[in-house]
Amino acid sequence: MRLRNVKNCDVILNNSRYFINNPETLKGLWQQEFNNNNKIMLEIGMGKGDFIIGMATLHPDWNFIGVERSPSVAVRAIQKLDKLKLDNVKVFTSDAICLDRVFNHEIDTIYLNFSDPWPKKRHAKRRLTHQNFLEIYDKLFIEDAKLKLKTDNDTLFESSLISLNNYGYMFDNIYLNLWEQEISNVKTEYEIKFASKGYKIKYVSAIKKIK
Amino acid sequence: MRLRNVKNCDVILNNSRYFINNPETLKGLWQQEFNNNNKIMLEIGMGKGDFIIGMATLHPDWNFIGVERSPSVAVRAIQKLDKLKLDNVKVFTSDAICLDRVFNHEIDTIYLNFSDPWPKKRHAKRRLTHQNFLEIYDKLFIEDAKLKLKTDNDTLFESSLISLNNYGYMFDNIYLNLWEQEISNVKTEYEIKFASKGYKIKYVSAIKKIK
Repeated sequence: MRLRNVKNCDVILNNSRYFINNPETLKGLWQQEFNNNNKIMLEIGMGKGDFIIGMATLHPDWNFIGVERSPSVAVRAIQKLDKLKLDNVKVFTSDAICLDRVFNHEIDTIYLNFSDPWPKKRHAKRRLTHQNFLEIYDKLFIEDAKLKLKTDNDTLFESSLISLNNYGYMFDNIYLNLWEQEISNVKTEYEIKFASKGYKIKYVSAIKKIK
Repeated sequence: MRLRNVKNCDVILNNSRYFINNPETLKGLWQQEFNNNNKIMLEIGMGKGDFIIGMATLHPDWNFIGVERSPSVAVRAIQKLDKLKLDNVKVFTSDAICLDRVFNHEIDTIYLNFSDPWPKKRHAKRRLTHQNFLEIYDKLFIEDAKLKLKTDNDTLFESSLISLNNYGYMFDNIYLNLWEQEISNVKTEYEIKFASKGYKIKYVSAIKKIK
């Protein structure tokens, strides 16, 4: 877990009903925390929270957890959430690589929206679809879990398709231009900015069977 | 096999040293036909032949077979070949779905270059990466064979990635903009025309292990 180095930010986070300070203590107990048996969706790198807030509003029967590495970014999502009444959202700060300390086969779907592409080859291990992360996700997932990725970055998309395929994920949808499709798509703040500049939003959803 | 309905075309094909009239008779005997033990690469839908001629010139140690459904298109490739001296190229006409009558685990690599995208959903079964075709390719392939696809069409590319993944192919390279890559790429006549109009050439290479 990363140190929170902004004092005001720390106060806002810890005063929010949406923020979980010690997520490790809820390992295996997340449905209990939500007080229901609904499925749990996890966004890794939720940024300022527009996607998770939009999804949680659209799908009150699903639980949503947003993870963000940086407390100074997470606080932007918390500030928005604090103005709303949503019983199906929780937020905490963590590095993705530590998430197996927080979940034990409890996650139905992982969303990766506009993750850092780390376009240089020598940084490929840092991409959130690198095998090192996929091994972690296996420990979070229930059986027949899903991973859904959106990006404007070709290199991240190409390497993610290869990595997911090689690791045994089964693709169910791929779109090279998501905004052209007539399907429901809750947009992130980043997505709107870049798509309106003419970047095509690439999308893949894939299923992972956990034995 | 499709009937050849252009008389002159028929004469040109049958007079060429490159053209095989009854390819079924060579099933299991293709290396013998080439008079060597080199690997055999198959282009399905070779069109006017620029790709296969370019590849055969670049790789004299590999054997190339070009298949084209339409004799009146195949003849354009044959006319070019007849002006050259290449010992590593053969051409015949056939529907892709009949290729298991022609090969018995003899093909190292299948190339699909700018295949008809059949973009309407109701025509999806006609795409050369539909499962019905992948089942045929299994009968052509040696162990650890490769399939390499190039297209400018998003729908064909998306559905090919899903189909190859779901059928058990392992991706080794994916490029959303092949022309941007610093790799060797023998271009087809169609490719040059469409890339110069601004279409991005998409590429995937994938490995199929045959048990």
